[in-house]
Amino acid sequence: MPQIRKILVANRGEIALRIMRTAREMGIATVAVFSEADRTSPHVRYADEAVCIGAAPSSESYLNIDKILKVCAELNVDAIHPGYGFLSENAGFAKRVKEAGLIFIGPSPESIEVMGSKLAAKQAASRYNIPMVPGTPDAISDRDEAKRIANSIGYPILIKASAGGGGKGMRVVENEAEFDEQMDRAVSEAQAAFGDGSVFIEKYITSPKHIEIQVLGDQYGHIIHLFERECSIQRRHQKVVEEAPSISITPEIREEMGRCAVDVARSCNYYGAGTVEFIMDENRNFYFLEMNTRLQVEHPVTEMITGVDLVKEMILIAEGQPLRIAQEDLQIHGHAIEIRVYAEDPANHFLPDIGTLHTYVKPDGNGVRVDDGFEEGMEIPIYYDPMIAKLITYGEDRETAIRKMTRAIDEYQISGVQTTLPFCRFVMQHEAFVNGSFDTNFVGRHFHPDLLSTKTDDEVAGLAALISALLNDTLPESKPVQNEEVSANASKWKARRFAAY
Amino acid sequence: MPQIRKILVANRGEIALRIMRTAREMGIATVAVFSEADRTSPHVRYADEAVCIGAAPSSESYLNIDKILKVCAELNVDAIHPGYGFLSENAGFAKRVKEAGLIFIGPSPESIEVMGSKLAAKQAASRYNIPMVPGTPDAISDRDEAKRIANSIGYPILIKASAGGGGKGMRVVENEAEFDEQMDRAVSEAQAAFGDGSVFIEKYITSPKHIEIQVLGDQYGHIIHLFERECSIQRRHQKVVEEAPSISITPEIREEMGRCAVDVARSCNYYGAGTVEFIMDENRNFYFLEMNTRLQVEHPVTEMITGVDLVKEMILIAEGQPLRIAQEDLQIHGHAIEIRVYAEDPANHFLPDIGTLHTYVKPDGNGVRVDDGFEEGMEIPIYYDPMIAKLITYGEDRETAIRKMTRAIDEYQISGVQTTLPFCRFVMQHEAFVNGSFDTNFVGRHFHPDLLSTKTDDEVAGLAALISALLNDTLPESKPVQNEEVSANASKWKARRFAAY
Repeated sequence: MPQIRKILVANRGEIALRIMRTAREMGIATVAVFSEADRTSPHVRYADEAVCIGAAPSSESYLNIDKILKVCAELNVDAIHPGYGFLSENAGFAKRVKEAGLIFIGPSPESIEVMGSKLAAKQAASRYNIPMVPGTPDAISDRDEAKRIANSIGYPILIKASAGGGGKGMRVVENEAEFDEQMDRAVSEAQAAFGDGSVFIEKYITSPKHIEIQVLGDQYGHIIHLFERECSIQRRHQKVVEEAPSISITPEIREEMGRCAVDVARSCNYYGAGTVEFIMDENRNFYFLEMNTRLQVEHPVTEMITGVDLVKEMILIAEGQPLRIAQEDLQIHGHAIEIRVYAEDPANHFLPDIGTLHTYVKPDGNGVRVDDGFEEGMEIPIYYDPMIAKLITYGEDRETAIRKMTRAIDEYQISGVQTTLPFCRFVMQHEAFVNGSFDTNFVGRHFHPDLLSTKTDDEVAGLAALISALLNDTLPESKPVQNEEVSANASKWKARRFAAY
Repeated sequence: MPQIRKILVANRGEIALRIMRTAREMGIATVAVFSEADRTSPHVRYADEAVCIGAAPSSESYLNIDKILKVCAELNVDAIHPGYGFLSENAGFAKRVKEAGLIFIGPSPESIEVMGSKLAAKQAASRYNIPMVPGTPDAISDRDEAKRIANSIGYPILIKASAGGGGKGMRVVENEAEFDEQMDRAVSEAQAAFGDGSVFIEKYITSPKHIEIQVLGDQYGHIIHLFERECSIQRRHQKVVEEAPSISITPEIREEMGRCAVDVARSCNYYGAGTVEFIMDENRNFYFLEMNTRLQVEHPVTEMITGVDLVKEMILIAEGQPLRIAQEDLQIHGHAIEIRVYAEDPANHFLPDIGTLHTYVKPDGNGVRVDDGFEEGMEIPIYYDPMIAKLITYGEDRETAIRKMTRAIDEYQISGVQTTLPFCRFVMQHEAFVNGSFDTNFVGRHFHPDLLSTKTDDEVAGLAALISALLNDTLPESKPVQNEEVSANASKWKARRFAAY
């Protein structure tokens, strides 16, 4: 069995650092590759060796397969970890890595390929009776047949253009009376947008929850699941708050979903770490969406509740070791929440807010984990995903994890860019999040920028006191204050300030 | 039942911050008190209110009971958490707090008083058949009687001055033949040092391990234990590396030790969090040493393996709530290690090395917790214990926790003062620590400053490259490097540098 001695991480930022930390703990040397935009990044300094592979645009660096393989050859690299994004779900890359005599720390190119195609994935999964969103398997042209199917699925239904994307040619039909009118519109929209008027019919899920199952498989057909992650809080159709376990499912559904996820993985002979995504309706019916054949951004919440280091298991599996964990060994302990700290402006449609991290102080303490790839003074490059950090909290139960998250958000000090921190704090305190009655429509239904009180009254008072102190040169740091009362008042702004940003 | 709404933390540094974090998570307001030397400390800014209570020497601030109680009255404080050290085990303070109508977050004054006296503690514990180090209960003057007792205990024995301290009048007797000579010396030393020649006889434990049990009790007589902490790695008779669970005991001993600890707590009607310390010999016989009636410095390792937030439980118990955890609910999950990062020079007898934290960058990532009270640029005050931080790692097993600790130590960047980090790294890699064959004599037996290689060959090469780059103005930051190979070499020093400090 090959032993991996040197890993190249074909990625950047927090995930590159996170992978290298585990590699270092395992006594494995690490190689970073970086673009010119990332020259000062912590992941570059953290690696044992680091190589600049090109200009900032990903196509010239992080997506440049030739250059990455050349570095591997020059530095005697044994294995490549692709992280997430970039080349992580590129079957061609996985194949090239293999052909170069290197170990790809991930699934086989074949598994990536099957699950990379929605149609192939559903076909593979259908052999295992995995529940799928009810609908027509193929494009439909016979209107009476379409109506009959719609009736058998039950309204509301969704009409989707076969060639579709971006919501064009997509229509919700609430009842049979609306059917003809909406069908006409969908077909003509599809025709206009894509030059192809063929459409599918699918059950429309009014209040969908996004729940996914983490799986691990070895190269000998053993596959286990590590329970679910609830990822329904999204903005711009992308996850921003994730947690494990989900407040929305029962132990029975967890078991059934886990079994389905293992079957989906089995359907494509999966090994490594993967995630099977489901959509769940308000009656807790769940349907297979897709399988992600990589490490997920939100994997830490699973690590917190299971005690399993997923990157370590990925490396051991890639070496060809049999799975060390049996399904019955796994138990859920406590509750973990992750928020993604993006350089985005929640008050401006969550658009990226690129800039310099003038202040950057992380929270800490019991049950707080920060996975990040930035330091104070660094600029957030415009070329990549503007995620600054992942903040993860862990507590004995969900309430504790939420309280800890609120506390940690209040401790996080970032200035220079707008971030998703105030939005995530809003989520933590929102009744719908607290009581579990949220779905993927949370932002549209509950959020408005005016609801973000970036400054509390106390903070405004504190700032006023600070300005006054500056003008009068009575800052507590600059002059020792003997009298207790004065100091109590003077220091209030400091305390509030620490808590506020 | 009273609900605590505002807590004053009568302490400083990391423990003040750590307590306030939990208070904030519970929705409880916090008040910091601080000395003039701590004006810029994070704990001062973290609190909702902060009051300077006096000059740097503890007697004028952190030990000044009147001032602390005055602040409580002025700011409508409900409860005081004393942390460790300072007033935490002062029965008179606990009493004054109670008399002022405030809640003391800790045990009753009576429990503190009993366990504060070695004699009273042993008397109380003896009612529960707790094993104690065999020896004479009182000072002995009859030499034949002394010899008879020594024989019944079995050699080696220790002769200790009744009035003793600091090793004066202390003699190890290896066998009966040495008895008279060593007894004469002990008596005359004791006479000379203390003006009192009376001595005790005690079994001498050649290879002692320090193992302690965490207990929690409520005000209604329910007491549980939260397993052990192994604290045998000490320098200057003070702990520097702690872990849970202990590699040295069996599940049976754990259970027996736990039962004894609960009995010791019961013997003084204990409530709150407390620690029962034992000494264990090479045959795994354990003996009660003393009970610490406060939160211990090393409490985080217990939190990591049990998932219990000890400060939260202390607060709930102080409110009068019954214990929420039953003994059978508790299980050990994984392994945790704590090292104490002191501003001390391991190469100079671990003497304090006070100065400014010119560089201060903490490690992070999965399974790493840092409890600290400093920031980059701060000075370490000469007035207090020079502990900078506690670094805690948690992993699935002991080997993983050790590897994680080594990785985290390598990530910790501190410059401006010498620290115990290199010594702790030495411990993590020492065979005796790894295989568990260590005792409280570890430092004396295994450590010599020459064994600390502060610079590896690679690091020296890296520094040489850096100097060369500076001289030739070819630093990778100052000029973009297009060629991969050059950059790979040039960036090596950066990677190494990150790892080295």
